[in-house]
Amino acid sequence: MTTLVSGSNLARLRRKPIPPPIRIVGGLALLVVIGTGLLLLPISSTRPLTFMEALFTATSALSVTGLSVITPVQDLSLAGQILLMLLIQIGGVGFMVVAVIIFRLLGRRISFTDRIALSDSLGLLSPAAIVTLTRRVLITVITIEAIGAALLYLHWRTDSRLSEGQALFYAMFHAVSAFCNAGFDLFTGSPGFENGIPRDSVTLFILGSLIFLGGLGIPVIADLLSYPYERKLSLHTRITLIVVMLLVSGGAVGLWLSEGFDADGALHGQPLDRQIIVATFQSISARTAGFSGIANFEELTAGSQLLLIALMFIGCAPASMGGGITTGTFAVLSISLWSYARNLPTAQFGGRSLATGMVRRAAAVLTISLFVVLFASWLIVTTHDTTLDRAVFEVVSAFATCGLTLGFTSELNTFGQLVIIAVMFWGRLGALTIITAIARPNAAPQAVAYPEEQILIG
Amino acid sequence: MTTLVSGSNLARLRRKPIPPPIRIVGGLALLVVIGTGLLLLPISSTRPLTFMEALFTATSALSVTGLSVITPVQDLSLAGQILLMLLIQIGGVGFMVVAVIIFRLLGRRISFTDRIALSDSLGLLSPAAIVTLTRRVLITVITIEAIGAALLYLHWRTDSRLSEGQALFYAMFHAVSAFCNAGFDLFTGSPGFENGIPRDSVTLFILGSLIFLGGLGIPVIADLLSYPYERKLSLHTRITLIVVMLLVSGGAVGLWLSEGFDADGALHGQPLDRQIIVATFQSISARTAGFSGIANFEELTAGSQLLLIALMFIGCAPASMGGGITTGTFAVLSISLWSYARNLPTAQFGGRSLATGMVRRAAAVLTISLFVVLFASWLIVTTHDTTLDRAVFEVVSAFATCGLTLGFTSELNTFGQLVIIAVMFWGRLGALTIITAIARPNAAPQAVAYPEEQILIG
Ligand SMILES: [K+]
Ligand SMILES: [K+]
Repeated sequence: MTTLVSGSNLARLRRKPIPPPIRIVGGLALLVVIGTGLLLLPISSTRPLTFMEALFTATSALSVTGLSVITPVQDLSLAGQILLMLLIQIGGVGFMVVAVIIFRLLGRRISFTDRIALSDSLGLLSPAAIVTLTRRVLITVITIEAIGAALLYLHWRTDSRLSEGQALFYAMFHAVSAFCNAGFDLFTGSPGFENGIPRDSVTLFILGSLIFLGGLGIPVIADLLSYPYERKLSLHTRITLIVVMLLVSGGAVGLWLSEGFDADGALHGQPLDRQIIVATFQSISARTAGFSGIANFEELTAGSQLLLIALMFIGCAPASMGGGITTGTFAVLSISLWSYARNLPTAQFGGRSLATGMVRRAAAVLTISLFVVLFASWLIVTTHDTTLDRAVFEVVSAFATCGLTLGFTSELNTFGQLVIIAVMFWGRLGALTIITAIARPNAAPQAVAYPEEQILIG
Repeated sequence: MTTLVSGSNLARLRRKPIPPPIRIVGGLALLVVIGTGLLLLPISSTRPLTFMEALFTATSALSVTGLSVITPVQDLSLAGQILLMLLIQIGGVGFMVVAVIIFRLLGRRISFTDRIALSDSLGLLSPAAIVTLTRRVLITVITIEAIGAALLYLHWRTDSRLSEGQALFYAMFHAVSAFCNAGFDLFTGSPGFENGIPRDSVTLFILGSLIFLGGLGIPVIADLLSYPYERKLSLHTRITLIVVMLLVSGGAVGLWLSEGFDADGALHGQPLDRQIIVATFQSISARTAGFSGIANFEELTAGSQLLLIALMFIGCAPASMGGGITTGTFAVLSISLWSYARNLPTAQFGGRSLATGMVRRAAAVLTISLFVVLFASWLIVTTHDTTLDRAVFEVVSAFATCGLTLGFTSELNTFGQLVIIAVMFWGRLGALTIITAIARPNAAPQAVAYPEEQILIG
């Protein structure tokens, strides 16, 4: 009887709910498996894809990263390209929302556990409004993407290099890819588009707006949509908007300085308005979308590389389309630092104290993120013949689900591809979800309170 | 009367004590000025040094960094070399201790404010034992350095490339340079030592031991010395010893993997015992000493570069000879992360809770340190024609007062030298001292308690 699970034990095991974080990790893994399988079907591709190519592409699409070892427009059939678009959509918007929809389709009520699971992964604090929110989110997402696609179509149909049908499909694909911050494009490899996406100012403006909205995150968009009725924004929304504005403008100015004044810079000698548009687009895109507004991206100056690594690492808002440590973590750490320097008793901003434990959580995110990036980079450089900066750029890009690359993705060997796949997976789920899923939960509350002791820090 | 300071106001101004952190920053700045002046005296050098060379050398010596734009053995006279040794000694051990001695020499009692100042910068928690400790520290330091110098002398006098007098002076100089984790050496540029310091196993063992002791920090050494009487070690000492052991062994294994197995690696094809000694020495030295145990340091594999950047960034114990975010900060962040993942109510280790506010302080140190390193690196790469990895390595090396370089120091222009000087200065003082010195103190206690609110983090 000790080695066999008795009937009642089995029932108890079955009753014990799977913790939400594990369910989310498992869900994404399942989606990756399904995506890989569908990509391997002959109908999806113009040439047989290898298993690693399909796995890498599925993970990259579902994690909305955009790093790619294939050239989608050449290697995928139209069916494959539509599949890619669906994987991006599911990975970006759908992942959490799909779960709810499936439950509703099955006629089941959403249980409290499911609401908590959603609330955790969406990062929302009150689980009550989830169902209403989900419906509203889906409508919002599709509306935004439809408007974006329409604008892109109207603009691109005048492009002589694209047929009418191509312009329509490309507009849909890139509206989804931009809003979901995926960064996949169909131009790279298309005849007439040797340097990838069109970089005229109108295209950059439409794509940049879609990326920006996608990067704000579902809670912020929901908060902004309810502003006309409620006439107040949450602390989270206010901080996110401020941080995003600072990052976008700081990044744009930095890129403009690095690329505009350096004689080798990509923006050198171009008219000022063009410099501003490209620098702003690249700054928005760098935080997680991964479209490159600069043609010869591999030749970026070292200053821009560093700036982009920093922007990618910070990333987008929590519960958004983007990765990185998130603007929330960045804001909490900055506010905490500032308050500490000011000798304030707590971390404070805008007439609010940050709740106890938030600094601890933010520090945990930063610490584990640095560790993941450094460890993955070390694994890559010790198994590839490359320089440190290219490898670190690639890893941070995967970590932030950004997808910018200094041209290194195609040089990855199988081990390197597996490392990048793991980092993309991590990046999409976020540190807190993974920590909670991996770590052994502390079942019983602690019976002892340990005495406090200080140690010295720097 | 509004523009003039009245007599009583003046007295009040004079009575107001200068805050300890500002006093410490000012003290180091004053020492740098004096050191620069002395180095510029004709007696100190064999050729006239430029102002920037003298300033860079003085800052590098006083911050025990060891980055150098001159070749000390060629460009400095014997008097200049002795001056360099004294600057290292003052920068390493003396800085805080000298203040006390001067006060005693002047016959003044050490006031409570001074004790607090010392206590702050030494990082000690109880200021009571400072005076006794200072005497004991000085005796300890000189004893350790004397033993080290004697051993080095006995070993080096058998070296046919060194005269008897040279062997003696070199033994003293390098014992000081190693124990103070300064990393300056007189071999680079000496006839017969084309690759810098001798790298036989005996030399590496003696230097490594001195570096290791210097890197433990004054509080840990004092605690270890009192162990025979008190039979207990503080939490700080225990954590420091564990972290240092982990970093040294982890670094050694990593270097061994990166350099021993790569066909281009510096340790490839060497006997195993030699590989172990060199990897261990380099791992100890990397955290802040800056002696390179590997001859062609510029040709290090990318994996080793990354590993060394990480080790340097973490650095040594607080109140030690080394810089970096310190092992204390690293330990607090790691323990906090681990406790968070375990769902523990507080950060806990070895039956002790870490005091409230420590995580907040550690997060502040990490955040500001990342910002300093990234910003300084960006300043360097945008003003120099170099790759990102060499610049970041140089900046982290200065930040950690380490002094290892991928051969980039000599390529710095004046602006770059000023940036590195500022970073070395920052690195020696430590983040907390500087934050407190720069920031506007919050004079009055807060009258309002702000309501708490959560924001989302990653
Ligand atoms: K992306
Ligand atoms: K050093």
